[in-house]
Amino acid sequence: MTYKDSIPTSDEIDESLRYVPFHRWLGLRVGKLTEEGLEIIMPWRSEIISITEPHPVVHGGILASLIDLTGLYAVLSKGGQPAGTAYMNIDYHRQATEGPLTARAKVLKIGRVISTAEIYIYDPGNRLLASGRGGYPRLSV
Amino acid sequence: MTYKDSIPTSDEIDESLRYVPFHRWLGLRVGKLTEEGLEIIMPWRSEIISITEPHPVVHGGILASLIDLTGLYAVLSKGGQPAGTAYMNIDYHRQATEGPLTARAKVLKIGRVISTAEIYIYDPGNRLLASGRGGYPRLSV
Amino acid sequence: MTYKDSIPTSDEIDESLRYVPFHRWLGLRVGKLTEEGLEIIMPWRSEIISITEPHPVVHGGILASLIDLTGLYAVLSKGGQPAGTAYMNIDYHRQATEGPLTARAKVLKIGRVISTAEIYIYDPGNRLLASGRGGYPRLSV
Amino acid sequence: MTYKDSIPTSDEIDESLRYVPFHRWLGLRVGKLTEEGLEIIMPWRSEIISITEPHPVVHGGILASLIDLTGLYAVLSKGGQPAGTAYMNIDYHRQATEGPLTARAKVLKIGRVISTAEIYIYDPGNRLLASGRGGYPRLSV
Repeated sequence: MTYKDSIPTSDEIDESLRYVPFHRWLGLRVGKLTEEGLEIIMPWRSEIISITEPHPVVHGGILASLIDLTGLYAVLSKGGQPAGTAYMNIDYHRQATEGPLTARAKVLKIGRVISTAEIYIYDPGNRLLASGRGGYPRLSV
Repeated sequence: MTYKDSIPTSDEIDESLRYVPFHRWLGLRVGKLTEEGLEIIMPWRSEIISITEPHPVVHGGILASLIDLTGLYAVLSKGGQPAGTAYMNIDYHRQATEGPLTARAKVLKIGRVISTAEIYIYDPGNRLLASGRGGYPRLSV
Repeated sequence: MTYKDSIPTSDEIDESLRYVPFHRWLGLRVGKLTEEGLEIIMPWRSEIISITEPHPVVHGGILASLIDLTGLYAVLSKGGQPAGTAYMNIDYHRQATEGPLTARAKVLKIGRVISTAEIYIYDPGNRLLASGRGGYPRLSV
Repeated sequence: MTYKDSIPTSDEIDESLRYVPFHRWLGLRVGKLTEEGLEIIMPWRSEIISITEPHPVVHGGILASLIDLTGLYAVLSKGGQPAGTAYMNIDYHRQATEGPLTARAKVLKIGRVISTAEIYIYDPGNRLLASGRGGYPRLSV
């Protein structure tokens, strides 16, 4: 993906989500983009499941993917020009047993070298399922 | 997935990989299981791509998934009885531009409350692409 | 340190800070304790310096210590009964060049196995210097 | 601290440890520096204690400091020219109840933007007490 120098709009982020094959597969769309941060919505699909019994639970790696990308697009939406992800931390708080999932990212710092964001994933009842941080460098590591 | 009390063999881990819909979708298989640790192999598939130009690059969330699950199965292979993942850290070192990818996990500690593992992902030329750590609790968080 | 079953007051946390030799050496005191979270204040002292030229900068390990302990006491203040720290992540945003430093912690989840908190360190001008997360188990790891 | 362009020797690292007030206070010295990595030794002192009963335990923030700095000097010893620490992750495995403590760091990657190292802390009986990772940028974040 090529990131433009200008700050993208919500529609432009929504469109750029579709350039990425894995994001298309996840069925992502932008929820809202405000001064506070960026929201991305991920629907349920049967292939993202880890545990199936007694009820289906979304795989932690899928939540990690959602945390990673929502943070990156949030940095992008603040003009941070991320070249990718340098590192990421995730805490899992509760099992994700139904969709859609909502990820909300807040940029902590737009840095000269690395920008950082905090990201939170919520279930349809607005319960916190997982949260984390990503570090997005301006140049490839 | 139900984890047995006994320590699983390489074949049992390989089989249990197929119980998880997301692992099936990823096409995972056990490489080898030794005293040193566990190796899991992930083939290439077109939906796991993030950047497509100038060459396809595997999505960081896919690498995070591979790190998460390889650490969990490594803990399982040492009798750690993980109930899931409590937390995970990932560092991205180089872009993953070709497959299959090989993940190798080493258990740092089997704990009463949390077990921890280190996980490394290599490309076909054995170059380190990403690495990280996972914490796997004996009971759900 | 022995943690009581009941939820401590601001004064009790302030007093318990003095039981810990390293906290005494750091000169910590509770700023405020509200529904939102816990604030701990750390004064400047010459031994906490890393870089000395062109101006003194607080050592990253000191900021890590402040993040760790503020998260633990925040969990304690919500009845989380932490037995210690299981893991911690820190992002460094800006150099800490003057004191006192203010750490503010917010509990993300009081868990049965692990409680998690987010912690932010600010300089006297309220600029974010460092931030992170800690995981605090109910029982020793 | 000013880092020279050339790769430092074990004695030069040992000397540079003394330039940093907090490192002087900790009483650090280089154990050994090999192709494998860097070892730094930290003695016991009464102010680094967290829990005092039933036996004294080193504060997690002190272990975090040791992890941070050993990783940074390891990157320095490989020519990585670190400008500081961008981020750090720590896992606590066992309580540190006696000294001296030995930290061993291994560089995972010397990057153009960020270099990463793994660091392990051992007690006098060579038991793993804590471990973690640090990311060290070439330029200030």
